[in-house]
Amino acid sequence: MPTMKIAAAQMGGIQKDETREEVIARMLTLMDEAHAQGVEFLAYPEMTLTTFFPRFYVEDRADFDHWFETEMPNAATQPLFERARSYGMGFTFGYCELTPEGDHFNTAIIVSPEGEIVLKYRKTHLPGHADYEPERTHQHLEKRYFLPGDTGFGVVRSQGVVMGAAICNDRRWPETWRVLGLQGVELVAIGYNTPSQNNLSAEEGPERRLYHHELSVCAGAYQNSTYAIAVAKCGMEDGNHMIGGSIIVDPDGFVIARTEGEGDELIVAEAEFEKCAFGKSTVFNFAAHRRIEHYDLIASQTGVETPE
Amino acid sequence: MPTMKIAAAQMGGIQKDETREEVIARMLTLMDEAHAQGVEFLAYPEMTLTTFFPRFYVEDRADFDHWFETEMPNAATQPLFERARSYGMGFTFGYCELTPEGDHFNTAIIVSPEGEIVLKYRKTHLPGHADYEPERTHQHLEKRYFLPGDTGFGVVRSQGVVMGAAICNDRRWPETWRVLGLQGVELVAIGYNTPSQNNLSAEEGPERRLYHHELSVCAGAYQNSTYAIAVAKCGMEDGNHMIGGSIIVDPDGFVIARTEGEGDELIVAEAEFEKCAFGKSTVFNFAAHRRIEHYDLIASQTGVETPE
Repeated sequence: MPTMKIAAAQMGGIQKDETREEVIARMLTLMDEAHAQGVEFLAYPEMTLTTFFPRFYVEDRADFDHWFETEMPNAATQPLFERARSYGMGFTFGYCELTPEGDHFNTAIIVSPEGEIVLKYRKTHLPGHADYEPERTHQHLEKRYFLPGDTGFGVVRSQGVVMGAAICNDRRWPETWRVLGLQGVELVAIGYNTPSQNNLSAEEGPERRLYHHELSVCAGAYQNSTYAIAVAKCGMEDGNHMIGGSIIVDPDGFVIARTEGEGDELIVAEAEFEKCAFGKSTVFNFAAHRRIEHYDLIASQTGVETPE
Repeated sequence: MPTMKIAAAQMGGIQKDETREEVIARMLTLMDEAHAQGVEFLAYPEMTLTTFFPRFYVEDRADFDHWFETEMPNAATQPLFERARSYGMGFTFGYCELTPEGDHFNTAIIVSPEGEIVLKYRKTHLPGHADYEPERTHQHLEKRYFLPGDTGFGVVRSQGVVMGAAICNDRRWPETWRVLGLQGVELVAIGYNTPSQNNLSAEEGPERRLYHHELSVCAGAYQNSTYAIAVAKCGMEDGNHMIGGSIIVDPDGFVIARTEGEGDELIVAEAEFEKCAFGKSTVFNFAAHRRIEHYDLIASQTGVETPE
């Protein structure tokens, strides 16, 4: 099993008027820094290339198509792919995808050190709502601008490691982690854009939001014996604040690296992937311990059905 | 929705030579204390009535049938049922069950304030192993002495609250929580007997074990918007040490009460069950957000299948 340096490239806010080229320049700065530290796999956040526009409402959603990429790589992102290939570095980032069929997804890709897209993942668990809701302190219109992902949670063996991706809200859902875990995942990369305030609860500010974030990632990593990189786009963005708290978590569920600020920031950790094997062969030996005859509801019933 | 005082009755070790009657006397002391504090629902640990005998190996397992109860309530436990009924208190505890058919289960029951057993749960996720394994620092022979539970994770509405039960290792499995969550659970009672040392890893002592315990319970409560009581039998028992760390967790995933020691100890919290509704109707609104079309593997594949 390989040992490799893995890293999270946290990004500060990306304002509406920043161009893709300006964003890529910031990403390249972090990639250069990562390479200087010997990093072999680098994770950028969800929706890395643009502002988190689902906080804004537009009547005609086509007015927001300019936030979406119609091909990948494209002219703006090509330098990122080339730089990574020159470094022999694998990487992952999120962006908004508009397909030739006209479908919109919140997407992440994993790219091999050879510059090939080896995994595409489209976000499954879209939070928020589809219509303008005035009772909220801010809007979170992911269900307006995206379709639920149609890829499911796949994995790919890249750089000798079984890798999977998830996006933001997916990390709160143990189903995400378990489907990846059942495919032997050893590294889960998760980008997020998480507002610092629950838009329906004045009580839930950044402290609670950070706790829930870390709780979900650490539990998912522990319960599936996998490394995880959870990486934020954070700080102030178009007048809205998002939590930082990017972390790298080991297969025992412990945080082994953590960002300090809310801007562009690199954190690096040494991943010893053979450590995944211990949990996978003992307490979380799925073949020995799981009892699927009692799990039917999970995959057959979407909502709650309460007894009389 | 009711507000009620709920409590965990942590128990110190129960040595091999303690009688059922001696144990019940200790349980009654805690129940009296709970009643004095206005507690309406009280949770005792897994295998409350006996030592955690799966740490011992016997060639002929029938030699250990004396650790099992063949009826419930029985002569020894009757005073517990009667005292609770006189207090109008619901309660739950774990014991080893030997059925008329000769099957052995690690069982928990929930008892209504009227003294009726309203839910029986048999432990699903049996940890450990079935045969003597000399490479372990101590044995954990639950798979030798028990069958995997055949009840699944049911719930019952008792005292106006949707209650479910899980036992020890079940708490580490998100499937446990999710099946209960899909039935609208508002209070999960979990007893445990957790050795302070991973019997296959010298590195994993009580500090890590407590972290994993709390991580699992807090994540399960948060991700299913439910109160949880996780209650230990702990401290020294027949020369072996088990972690304490009994906790009561709110539906936001925060610990709201915690034991300080490793002996018989009561902790109490005020549960405002309407707080479950917030998470269940927003971030964890299952009907709005779950995507069961991507969860198939969870209920159809027991072990890991890794890509080439």
